[in-house]
Amino acid sequence: MNLVSVQDVEDAARRLHDIAWETPVVPCDTLKDHPGWKILVKAENLQNTGSFKVRGAANALLARQERNEKIRSLVTYSAGNHGAGAAYAGSRLGIEVTVCMPTWSVPAKVDAVRRYGGSVIFTDDLLNKTRTLAAEADAAMLHPFDDRDVIAGQGTIALELLRQVPNPDAVVIPVGGGGLISGLGTVLAKLSPDTQIIGVEPMDASSMTHALAVGAPASLPIPVRSVADGLTAPAAGEITFEHARRYIDQMIQVSEQEIMDAWSLMLSATRLFVEPSAATTLAALRSGRLELPDRATVVLIATGGNAALDTPELRT
Amino acid sequence: MNLVSVQDVEDAARRLHDIAWETPVVPCDTLKDHPGWKILVKAENLQNTGSFKVRGAANALLARQERNEKIRSLVTYSAGNHGAGAAYAGSRLGIEVTVCMPTWSVPAKVDAVRRYGGSVIFTDDLLNKTRTLAAEADAAMLHPFDDRDVIAGQGTIALELLRQVPNPDAVVIPVGGGGLISGLGTVLAKLSPDTQIIGVEPMDASSMTHALAVGAPASLPIPVRSVADGLTAPAAGEITFEHARRYIDQMIQVSEQEIMDAWSLMLSATRLFVEPSAATTLAALRSGRLELPDRATVVLIATGGNAALDTPELRT
Repeated sequence: MNLVSVQDVEDAARRLHDIAWETPVVPCDTLKDHPGWKILVKAENLQNTGSFKVRGAANALLARQERNEKIRSLVTYSAGNHGAGAAYAGSRLGIEVTVCMPTWSVPAKVDAVRRYGGSVIFTDDLLNKTRTLAAEADAAMLHPFDDRDVIAGQGTIALELLRQVPNPDAVVIPVGGGGLISGLGTVLAKLSPDTQIIGVEPMDASSMTHALAVGAPASLPIPVRSVADGLTAPAAGEITFEHARRYIDQMIQVSEQEIMDAWSLMLSATRLFVEPSAATTLAALRSGRLELPDRATVVLIATGGNAALDTPELRT
Repeated sequence: MNLVSVQDVEDAARRLHDIAWETPVVPCDTLKDHPGWKILVKAENLQNTGSFKVRGAANALLARQERNEKIRSLVTYSAGNHGAGAAYAGSRLGIEVTVCMPTWSVPAKVDAVRRYGGSVIFTDDLLNKTRTLAAEADAAMLHPFDDRDVIAGQGTIALELLRQVPNPDAVVIPVGGGGLISGLGTVLAKLSPDTQIIGVEPMDASSMTHALAVGAPASLPIPVRSVADGLTAPAAGEITFEHARRYIDQMIQVSEQEIMDAWSLMLSATRLFVEPSAATTLAALRSGRLELPDRATVVLIATGGNAALDTPELRT
């Protein structure tokens, strides 16, 4: 299988220059157990549309236009952030976007999709419903993560990051379907080969860990559900799996309680409002399951900030 | 009276280069009433110690050292952010810092002072207690805002901002004792003279509005208290008043309810966690009391992020 290349990511960065914003890197200095670690947060919660997903979605639409595909309408599926990114990109390019979302979707994410003009269809059979709708409407279909252009778009985070933080010792990356870690891995493995690439998943949604264990992107044998709603893909993708198994140095699983604790802590430690999926990175760091040198520079990818304030877990 | 000069601010920026961080400017695009305004947030809640106050406090200590003052211990007073900034600067310079804080202080701010090694004394007679303690201990005293070095330090925000956003139409600045707006005014009036300098105060803590009305930094004739705990100085300073009356184009007062509403909105609109004092800027913008052209670029100074998650007002 042809993997995404650094050149593909650089092409994506060129396409995204007036759509995706360069997000800041914010220090997080309150981890008591490892006071020697320098912890930095790449704040993609401050990204246009509230998450990194706009990078991949917009790159996919722009790349297809460059290849002379005529797209007037698009159907995709999403827990929300990819949907918002696709809706935003569509609104910029005059493309109608429909997003299939789970029936349990977080309201803040439904709002985000609609804010950018996307239509929302609720379903619990995301992939099939997306295919059916696309066929019925003669619309283009976009896979939310198992797509080379999407992966290349997400990889632009790493190009930015290496300008901001040259040669970090480790980058901790939330894993859902694997698009983000595939993109970051593409760039980091080539341009910063000593950087450890750490993936993190909720224990009850560890589809990439499962895929790596069985050697194929097989569906998890359990129902997938987590407070980290952005990380609930039931299976890795065919393409993301091939990237993941080459680039990931370590996968870490974190419990729901660890995610919730880290979510609160992240707010007071960074003054960034992130969503639970992003807090999995701090949960991984606090879990003791990461082996890093004493004075390691560790970058957490804070994937998004589309969550509600009144989420019960944050009220404790 | 000699006012602080742009040169003083540039000297401060040199002193602060490895203490204060360049904070990002974050877009905030959800104000429905004025969709044409471009609203940007200067995110000083992401500053070292969680607020801009470290700029002024650290500059004051470093400037005194440059003038060959020997300081081994320092006493100051603060609602918290200046205290945290002074404690942090002291810890870097080997100076013991004691901070007098109100008995009603926000716990997150007491924690912030102590995190950086500061000692906390609770009192409701802040200025007198600070003077007494300084005299008893033969310690240096630092006024939290009515000090030229403090003002020059705060002004460094404007030097940064003008590199990030050249010639904004307006900058909206929370006003407590007036140190921040004095510093920003110094720079903006000289280097970006078309920029409107808008101050904002809680209605029940409008000491600068009062001072400008009576022509002197007289104490407010009412007890001062606001959810915007950082803006509760009972009177403007002698020095800050002289700056304020030259530089401020408009003062706006906002109600407690307007502040609380803006506080919640700021979180969802920017994914930045700020304290209520910082949210007064968005409250001012939403109040309809600001006259700006249709396509104005408006910068809100988000002063700090030292607040608690479980503040009742954020739970509604």
